[in-house]
Amino acid sequence: MALSDIRTGLRNEEAIATAVSAFRQVFGDRFQTGEAIRAQHAHTTTYIPAQLSDGVLFAQGKEDVTTAVRLCAEHRVPVIPFGTGSSLEGQVNAPHGGISIDFSRMNRVLEVNAEDLDCTVEPGITREELNAYLRDTGLFFPIDPGANASIGGMASTRASGTNAVRYGTMKDNVLAVTVVTARGEEIRTARRARKSSAGYDLTRLYVGSEGTLGVLTSVTLRLQGIPEMIAGGICGFPTLKDACNAVIMTIQLGIPVARIELLNALQIKACNAYSGLTLPEQPTLFVEFHGSEESVALQSRQFGEVASECGGGDFQWTSDADERARLWKARHNVYWAAKALRAGAAVLATDVCVPISRLADCVAETEADIEQHGLLAPIVGHAGDGNFHVSVVFDDQDPAEIEKVEAFVGRLNGRALSMDGTCTGEHGIGQGKQAFLPRELGEAVDVMRQIKRALDPDNILNPGKIFRLG
Amino acid sequence: MALSDIRTGLRNEEAIATAVSAFRQVFGDRFQTGEAIRAQHAHTTTYIPAQLSDGVLFAQGKEDVTTAVRLCAEHRVPVIPFGTGSSLEGQVNAPHGGISIDFSRMNRVLEVNAEDLDCTVEPGITREELNAYLRDTGLFFPIDPGANASIGGMASTRASGTNAVRYGTMKDNVLAVTVVTARGEEIRTARRARKSSAGYDLTRLYVGSEGTLGVLTSVTLRLQGIPEMIAGGICGFPTLKDACNAVIMTIQLGIPVARIELLNALQIKACNAYSGLTLPEQPTLFVEFHGSEESVALQSRQFGEVASECGGGDFQWTSDADERARLWKARHNVYWAAKALRAGAAVLATDVCVPISRLADCVAETEADIEQHGLLAPIVGHAGDGNFHVSVVFDDQDPAEIEKVEAFVGRLNGRALSMDGTCTGEHGIGQGKQAFLPRELGEAVDVMRQIKRALDPDNILNPGKIFRLG
Repeated sequence: MALSDIRTGLRNEEAIATAVSAFRQVFGDRFQTGEAIRAQHAHTTTYIPAQLSDGVLFAQGKEDVTTAVRLCAEHRVPVIPFGTGSSLEGQVNAPHGGISIDFSRMNRVLEVNAEDLDCTVEPGITREELNAYLRDTGLFFPIDPGANASIGGMASTRASGTNAVRYGTMKDNVLAVTVVTARGEEIRTARRARKSSAGYDLTRLYVGSEGTLGVLTSVTLRLQGIPEMIAGGICGFPTLKDACNAVIMTIQLGIPVARIELLNALQIKACNAYSGLTLPEQPTLFVEFHGSEESVALQSRQFGEVASECGGGDFQWTSDADERARLWKARHNVYWAAKALRAGAAVLATDVCVPISRLADCVAETEADIEQHGLLAPIVGHAGDGNFHVSVVFDDQDPAEIEKVEAFVGRLNGRALSMDGTCTGEHGIGQGKQAFLPRELGEAVDVMRQIKRALDPDNILNPGKIFRLG
Repeated sequence: MALSDIRTGLRNEEAIATAVSAFRQVFGDRFQTGEAIRAQHAHTTTYIPAQLSDGVLFAQGKEDVTTAVRLCAEHRVPVIPFGTGSSLEGQVNAPHGGISIDFSRMNRVLEVNAEDLDCTVEPGITREELNAYLRDTGLFFPIDPGANASIGGMASTRASGTNAVRYGTMKDNVLAVTVVTARGEEIRTARRARKSSAGYDLTRLYVGSEGTLGVLTSVTLRLQGIPEMIAGGICGFPTLKDACNAVIMTIQLGIPVARIELLNALQIKACNAYSGLTLPEQPTLFVEFHGSEESVALQSRQFGEVASECGGGDFQWTSDADERARLWKARHNVYWAAKALRAGAAVLATDVCVPISRLADCVAETEADIEQHGLLAPIVGHAGDGNFHVSVVFDDQDPAEIEKVEAFVGRLNGRALSMDGTCTGEHGIGQGKQAFLPRELGEAVDVMRQIKRALDPDNILNPGKIFRLG
């Protein structure tokens, strides 16, 4: 993880100064260059050191974005889109300087088509804002990466989260985007039909491109009907293998579970301490079912049978909203629960994803690795997808600990790749995972670079992310 | 639809002659240049006139494909991949001449990972061959475009079909591909993890690119467990609007219907005649449910309630395999049923897709258009996706009829676009729909062209399809 290579960006000082002055003139107070604001826009829930941009534009509409990209294109200065700063791999850093575009003021719902189960939003709206807006329509947007991220940011990193096992990831739930190209022209990638075979799938190309191919100005999303009933429960297992077998069997039987999360024993211990629970410290599945009353009861019963067959403890499910909320709040707080395991420590949250048949092996080997190297690192996984997170608790001021953590991340990714998995199921490559991308995809990364060069010949769109152009 | 413009391709005779001679030398009998074989490889279920390639390579493995693309690259001669020839928009034509690669001998299943619900196949395997192979594993590949198409062809046109409403399209069911680039290098776009955020989504870029960005050598697919029970039935409605309302309500309630197909009155009449049915000649929904015995019973009951609320007739469902097979065989034979409406006639099968709230309007206006212009054209739709097909029965030897049909297709596509729909839900652009792509996506087509130029600078990969490089 030679992150230091990636961090040293070249800056074109003269061009940047000219661009900053032009932005001041065009945007007035909407453009801010104070250090505190710039620092805030390079801050993320990550261990990667901040690299500040040279100014932050608080865009108020797509015209601002188009104007900003055109100015940056003219001066060949980087553009770095910023949603809420909840990305984990350095996606909002400005290694070559440039202009951050803050989307917090572009948070309008532009259109809801309730009959078609879709809506179009500006990229700055957060998923919680969107769901609050939608509540009266009986619809909701299901993707839940944990953080209250912006929809634009979620699209850019191809985010997913706890209920991707049922509803898919951002790639499955974005119908279309409008995007400003490196030339400063806005295009729309698709119409509102639920499927299309009309030309290249540009929607999916921009989803997950981390702002390196264009700057999003709107996102059209698929919505779901709010389930008539939501029920859930938890079930402990003697071993990781047993818990993973229950997951595999659940998926194979086609039980349409909405969430199925695996917490290892240390993660349960951390949650008990942080969220005041008293769960047995053993591998545990948190599950949730969505549907009609009858369907939820059926799913719960079927899952209970599977769990029992795999050696799981008694499975109790409840549709009581408070009880569910308490459990899932504990699940959502795993990051903070991990952090609280050691006073004053930092947390590196990293993710990998493997075919589910390898999940038990990958988690078990990772647990052994953690123990062997004396790390403190609970594990929580979106088990239905084979995706899991390790929250490494460490002292980010201690070079020896940093080195140890980076070596661990290297082994973790190597392990996932050796099992035909990916170095990131949902966080993206950003700056932090660049070393692993060619190990995962080999020459395919050259094809990505060819696309990047074709669509952004001057490399102004979030440069230094995903790969180096070399 | 100035198809004539697209049909006149320039041919580089000297390069082609050199390449043909090189192919003969390298591949011997696996390379065929007889006219009958070449004609067969330009033949499709389409009204678009055949344009023959200059020779057909029967590839036996990925090494053949790599060698073939390298030879074509060296001589700057087109490469046209050929699966089963069931594409509908001229995708296998050779407007600039060149070499067809026939994949029928590359039909092996390379790997089945039953626990992970995935498999990897060579592109030439057909979906029926694959499902026959998988039967013993308890798994199946759900995408069913009607024709017994090859998996490679289905990936290339982003195919879908009757049960996309539940299982998605090829974009949702291809996990990864290996593909030979224009330089003749094989790359792999993803590992086997069920999701990934590692770089650009090249899988989705190649899916639907109609062979214009690379030649597939393997496809890794998501599989599903064979449902414990399959049940289905049909339900007639007094009006199209009523039938479409039942579809919208079914989708909104989240009833996980596996197929929901709309046949208009003329289509029912054609099916009655062709398949010996005696259904009332009215708008009719064919539905199918997959799941456990309890779940199927529940879905059927819920759908029956919806249908009744929307004015539908008595909904009878059955899990009897013979009865289901008889009905769905009639559904699958709509093309032949349409053809049989007029002795010796040709059929133009075209598709559009609109947001489902506009489906009733779009179908009703299209019915009126058909009547007003004296056309014979039954309609069948994948109603849950807002996707429908018109099978125009006409005399393809009569220029006046051809002109009338082309004008109708123009109006049909204009209508879909005016309703924020797409000019093709599942057939692709090929040669036949090129005029509509810029009307649908405007400047986004330029981005597609930039990608094409970057990945295939000499334009050797299925040139003349999707768009002109002009």
